[in-house]
Amino acid sequence: MKRSLAAMLCAGLIASIGTSADAQVLKEFGSFHVGGRQASLSGYPIAEYVFTQGAPPTRVDPNGDFEVEQMYVQYLIPEPQASKYPLLMWHGGGLTGVTWDTKPDGKPGFMQYFFKAGHPIYVSDAVERGRASWARTPEIFTTPPLFRTKKEAWEQFRIGPNNSYDVDPAKRVATQGGKFPTQAFDQFAKQFVPRWVSNDAVTVKAYDALLQRVGPSVLMVHSQAGNFGFRATLNAPDKVKGLVAIEPAGAPAPGPELDKLKSIPILIIWGDNIGSEAVWVRQQPFSLKFADDLKARGGDVEVIELPKIGITGNDHMVMMDTNSDEVAAVIQDWMKRKGLMQD
Amino acid sequence: MKRSLAAMLCAGLIASIGTSADAQVLKEFGSFHVGGRQASLSGYPIAEYVFTQGAPPTRVDPNGDFEVEQMYVQYLIPEPQASKYPLLMWHGGGLTGVTWDTKPDGKPGFMQYFFKAGHPIYVSDAVERGRASWARTPEIFTTPPLFRTKKEAWEQFRIGPNNSYDVDPAKRVATQGGKFPTQAFDQFAKQFVPRWVSNDAVTVKAYDALLQRVGPSVLMVHSQAGNFGFRATLNAPDKVKGLVAIEPAGAPAPGPELDKLKSIPILIIWGDNIGSEAVWVRQQPFSLKFADDLKARGGDVEVIELPKIGITGNDHMVMMDTNSDEVAAVIQDWMKRKGLMQD
Repeated sequence: MKRSLAAMLCAGLIASIGTSADAQVLKEFGSFHVGGRQASLSGYPIAEYVFTQGAPPTRVDPNGDFEVEQMYVQYLIPEPQASKYPLLMWHGGGLTGVTWDTKPDGKPGFMQYFFKAGHPIYVSDAVERGRASWARTPEIFTTPPLFRTKKEAWEQFRIGPNNSYDVDPAKRVATQGGKFPTQAFDQFAKQFVPRWVSNDAVTVKAYDALLQRVGPSVLMVHSQAGNFGFRATLNAPDKVKGLVAIEPAGAPAPGPELDKLKSIPILIIWGDNIGSEAVWVRQQPFSLKFADDLKARGGDVEVIELPKIGITGNDHMVMMDTNSDEVAAVIQDWMKRKGLMQD
Repeated sequence: MKRSLAAMLCAGLIASIGTSADAQVLKEFGSFHVGGRQASLSGYPIAEYVFTQGAPPTRVDPNGDFEVEQMYVQYLIPEPQASKYPLLMWHGGGLTGVTWDTKPDGKPGFMQYFFKAGHPIYVSDAVERGRASWARTPEIFTTPPLFRTKKEAWEQFRIGPNNSYDVDPAKRVATQGGKFPTQAFDQFAKQFVPRWVSNDAVTVKAYDALLQRVGPSVLMVHSQAGNFGFRATLNAPDKVKGLVAIEPAGAPAPGPELDKLKSIPILIIWGDNIGSEAVWVRQQPFSLKFADDLKARGGDVEVIELPKIGITGNDHMVMMDTNSDEVAAVIQDWMKRKGLMQD
């Protein structure tokens, strides 16, 4: 009690002085791994490797026990907390939690925005990615790892039209009016991590474990994590107090299962120029049909196509665009309207 | 100026109330990737994969351009800053920056300790690991990824004697008097990431880039990063204002090159039971000989074998042991003595 008062006074004091817009009281930070299982390998040959310059070769026996299919979560808890629930931020395919952090152009991203808005932030790396680690392929992860090329990202993320990517940054032609900071595109490409197509079920399992651990939360999911977020919400509707899906790659099929989601406020956000890229022409209807069906069932779901409210030029990586604060403010406003912030 | 005063008042206020030992003013947080290069692949066959449940197969062309060999860095800047320099924390082999964060038993680790002590903290994932990502093998990373087994970690990290590991946690026999929280060992194993033996040179190159970007810093390095830390310091002695090497797996050979390090305070820390594990019997002498030679050249290097100052039971993962705060205090005291803290 006393502590919260002090923190509030401090937050107010810092804010009122006004020269350190980003300084804030941090109640706690830390990280953990959650989910996963033990797997064992046997019967593989022993090999020898030199691990450390100057050391003799070490015999490496690949057989043994491993932890696999866990996920990684890092949290930052502000004081005072302005939201009612923690905000869990789930990245898209071939990416990690870095999606939400400082943008490739070095400016503050969604993680900074929502932390500053008083949300306890839980940013995760899903199974197979980043600090979640990955397991031996094909023995445990059964398909090959896939590496996203810069060209694929440039086109599929609608940063530039098809065939406008060039290995030379100076020769790349971005979408006209596009908001991606294209000078930072190669910096963005440093965030790419390999992906597997065979890990969806174990990824959802780890997300389920995360929700059970953190408890009632608001989810913010992007792209591939659209599927994971909707599925995890169906698996534990009591744990999800709000769901923000940014350009979700998919959504559950219409049907009576969606009745489980009727009491959960859901916001679906789409950027600009969807029609320019076949992937999104094909994938966007899943979430639109989902929204229509859920609304017809009495659910509380809102779809915001950003150009329709006058916010133009956003590509797939909305949270990295130069106008990310403007989009974040739309989301924050929705959270307020849905009663997800403290009074 | 005004901002710092407010922050100091707040830090003092929070501390004086005493019920929120961990609350602190966070000036800024964020992350970036640094180093690396572009690599291109060509001539590999196109394959088809289903990426998202419900979507038709997508053609995946593995050929194209990639960013590779970058590293990932996350920073937390406290206000006020009590140290003179940022603290760069470099993890060991087969691990990530999670090494320094919350311990596997859920208690605060070195990252929390040194942040609270007023150091700007830069925790990184080295090339090939965690959020740094990794590149296609063997086309770009030329050797196979190696996965550490639980048994290997249990033994090589001196958590238990050789052949005391069992797949059943209840049957594992830990080192007598050992300080590792053995009930959290499987949780620790979730932090393991694959490693390659062919990436040392590019890893140092990325660390060099990190030092150039952050500027004058204090390094805290562990295990495999001993080699990287000493090498990066030799490459940019003007950028390293202090170096703490915790159980360094190696060190530069004695010789005139070490003259470059004479003006840099260096602390080398070793835990307990070194003699119980062949790896450390073999590797410890590298840093001891390094220290002797550098001292003979007039360098400022201190070796602390923890049992000799009455701190017993520490294994290789000193920062995860139940007495990690006690070891951190030894390091913090050394920093004060070496003039690395503000007056």
